[in-house]
Amino acid sequence: MANEKIPYKIYLSEDELPKQWYNVRADMKKKPAPLLNPGTGKPVTPEELGRVFCDELVKQELDDTSAYIDIPEEIQSFYKMYRPAPLVRAYCLEKALGTPAKIYYKFEGNNTSGSHKLNSAIAQAYYAKKQGLKGVTTETGAGQWGTALSMACSYFDLDCRVYMVKVSYEQKPFRREVMRTYGASVTPSPSTTTEVGRKILAEFPDTNGSLGCAISEAVEAATSTEGYRYVLGSVLSQVLLHQTVIGLETKTAMDKYGIKPDIIIGCAGGGSNLGGLIAPFMGEKLRGEADYRFIAVEPASCPSLTRGVYAYDFCDTGKVCPLQKMYTLGSGFMPSPNHAGGLRYHGMSAILSELYDQGLMEAKSVEQTAVFDAAQKFARVEGILPAPESSHAIKAAIDEALKCKETGEEKTILFGLTGTGYFDMYAYAAFNDGKMSDYIPSDEEIAKSVAKLPKIG
Amino acid sequence: MANEKIPYKIYLSEDELPKQWYNVRADMKKKPAPLLNPGTGKPVTPEELGRVFCDELVKQELDDTSAYIDIPEEIQSFYKMYRPAPLVRAYCLEKALGTPAKIYYKFEGNNTSGSHKLNSAIAQAYYAKKQGLKGVTTETGAGQWGTALSMACSYFDLDCRVYMVKVSYEQKPFRREVMRTYGASVTPSPSTTTEVGRKILAEFPDTNGSLGCAISEAVEAATSTEGYRYVLGSVLSQVLLHQTVIGLETKTAMDKYGIKPDIIIGCAGGGSNLGGLIAPFMGEKLRGEADYRFIAVEPASCPSLTRGVYAYDFCDTGKVCPLQKMYTLGSGFMPSPNHAGGLRYHGMSAILSELYDQGLMEAKSVEQTAVFDAAQKFARVEGILPAPESSHAIKAAIDEALKCKETGEEKTILFGLTGTGYFDMYAYAAFNDGKMSDYIPSDEEIAKSVAKLPKIG
Repeated sequence: MANEKIPYKIYLSEDELPKQWYNVRADMKKKPAPLLNPGTGKPVTPEELGRVFCDELVKQELDDTSAYIDIPEEIQSFYKMYRPAPLVRAYCLEKALGTPAKIYYKFEGNNTSGSHKLNSAIAQAYYAKKQGLKGVTTETGAGQWGTALSMACSYFDLDCRVYMVKVSYEQKPFRREVMRTYGASVTPSPSTTTEVGRKILAEFPDTNGSLGCAISEAVEAATSTEGYRYVLGSVLSQVLLHQTVIGLETKTAMDKYGIKPDIIIGCAGGGSNLGGLIAPFMGEKLRGEADYRFIAVEPASCPSLTRGVYAYDFCDTGKVCPLQKMYTLGSGFMPSPNHAGGLRYHGMSAILSELYDQGLMEAKSVEQTAVFDAAQKFARVEGILPAPESSHAIKAAIDEALKCKETGEEKTILFGLTGTGYFDMYAYAAFNDGKMSDYIPSDEEIAKSVAKLPKIG
Repeated sequence: MANEKIPYKIYLSEDELPKQWYNVRADMKKKPAPLLNPGTGKPVTPEELGRVFCDELVKQELDDTSAYIDIPEEIQSFYKMYRPAPLVRAYCLEKALGTPAKIYYKFEGNNTSGSHKLNSAIAQAYYAKKQGLKGVTTETGAGQWGTALSMACSYFDLDCRVYMVKVSYEQKPFRREVMRTYGASVTPSPSTTTEVGRKILAEFPDTNGSLGCAISEAVEAATSTEGYRYVLGSVLSQVLLHQTVIGLETKTAMDKYGIKPDIIIGCAGGGSNLGGLIAPFMGEKLRGEADYRFIAVEPASCPSLTRGVYAYDFCDTGKVCPLQKMYTLGSGFMPSPNHAGGLRYHGMSAILSELYDQGLMEAKSVEQTAVFDAAQKFARVEGILPAPESSHAIKAAIDEALKCKETGEEKTILFGLTGTGYFDMYAYAAFNDGKMSDYIPSDEEIAKSVAKLPKIG
């Protein structure tokens, strides 16, 4: 079964790990639009952003010209605790599909946070510590990001306050307990600890909470507490920057073995994993050095790229964050309750939105029953039980591999396997019991949500 | 923080992986006592064992003279999907403890079964398939072994029937769903599908089930169904044989960097992980080539080595399995209900029992609150959230490292980190809430259980 030339798993040695992050914006001729202050409608200043985010992260957020940014030694050390992540040749999946395609995946699930989120969490915690802060606040849905951040804060002895969407807090207690084990305080959102939380509770006493609402609470908690800042696990350009360790490692490993991917696929919610995976490859494309097909895969139930509009929108429900130009379904858009797993954010990274708008990247949406079917197939032959999020990329990779089977083309397909599904067994149980359903929002539903976008300029 | 010479994680390349298992019994002057037929009191014959186990596994079980046994190509290929397992230098733990000791751990949790159990599951499934069987049966408690076996059977397209201790089936549905995702059928035990199950249910209608009872059901299901055999995840010598991939990889990695451990520590329930980890090192000790301290760590609530007797006993509650000479608390012994996690088997591997009896290995018991305290400390500095089982070894390793801090000795400590605790968050929650308690069985309780041992010879 094994091709003797390419091992099942390529692990880089520690001295081959990236020492700099790559800032793809530096190679974009047309840059992503600036963040705007929702009050003035003007580009946010570093001072304004500095009230919410750490100073060094504000610099990274606004820097669209430096191509490479040094990874501090302390972060490199932490990365060595769980990186390199393996680049895996999916020999068994190829065989099961009977495809001539060569499939590779970069697996980011071999750490306790269970996903790639740790790559940015440790960077954000480091800069908070370096600035002398006491702690950070954040929101989490099912808990992947919160888990990653609690691990990072524990390492740097920072206080970590997590606002967790209420329904997840109550119905999915396991990730909550992982966060507590790492010393984080976890508050179900909406809560009475913030003004915005109290306001939402007064209006909707029975609400289950939402990610947008938890963001608003976390931002308020950070900006109203001395020595605290807010941190976010996706969407922001700083997060995509940190996540480029995924793509840089992948590219080094592929170059080492002379592998050139034809198609690069990643799931996309806020865009952190996809942006990190494709960055160095996209850089080559932008500089005219090589060409690749990039495919963003999103859930049919939350299709920001494929069915949203490209416009300025709020990043949160409470409308306290800066405005960002992005593909969006409107900040009030909520995926259907039957939607399992993550990838439920109403918008998309500004970088990815701009690359998509320029036609440098494709996007497709997939339905969740098909996604879990692909997840099960993958688990059975490749061993790894994938996260529902990651399985969106698996589904698209399998589709492309089956096209190769029809045409006989020996394409090389690379996809990002962002994490494991150990804390998503409720969703797998629904699938195993045949109780999983699909939902595609109607045009009217999206139009109604998009109609509420802020009016800019 | 980093010592530049030894990386954080040592990964062997695929061509350095073991191609043979090592059978430590070949180097033992005094061998483990033979398995006995409970009916006749005489050593079991291969034919008798062949009714329960696959033919090739019977050979391996009874072979105490061949030092090396080839790992079939197909199993080597599967191993490459999730191995090598990293040998990790615990730089961060050392720093947190302020110890001059050098601590290493072999981490077996980077696969979906979450533990080392997969190493033997894939071997047992392979031999079943090779024999042309339709399927296998087994029991599982919290589900680690059942998960591993379901993955292995899915890979070889074998039917997999798992009897899962009823209380775990009902209260811990997540691993059950992982098994179902891999296509296994999972039955709560005791069940009405077997004679022994019906008998136990008639006598104790409200029973929560037990591991010994589930073993009896699985054995009955295998021996009464055409084309099926029974497989077991620990205790047996064949299992320890397969698990020597742990120790062999560890030794190759250590030799490569010129590292010699002074102390080797592993948790011990049935002994599969400990036996596999120490085997090649114990071989050197038996042959007089090197000396090491070996420490088996067991829970104070189920202390077979430290407080049991060395005698022939039944391996299961239903008394359908052969008799094995081992350290045992009696086949009717049940750990207190407040006992979390695995390591709840009443006996111990015959190989480890004999090595311990010969004074070649030490044993100690630890209480679970201290174990979870060590687990939390470890998780916070090393990142990995350990399984409760594995955390017994962490606790003992930390104790030895702190002794080095007192004496100033720069000992090298190696321990086995068998798996992750993602499916044990109920136990972590109890610890986080301060609701975890300890239990040490009284001398009377143990004496009462041991008094029921079968009378042999």
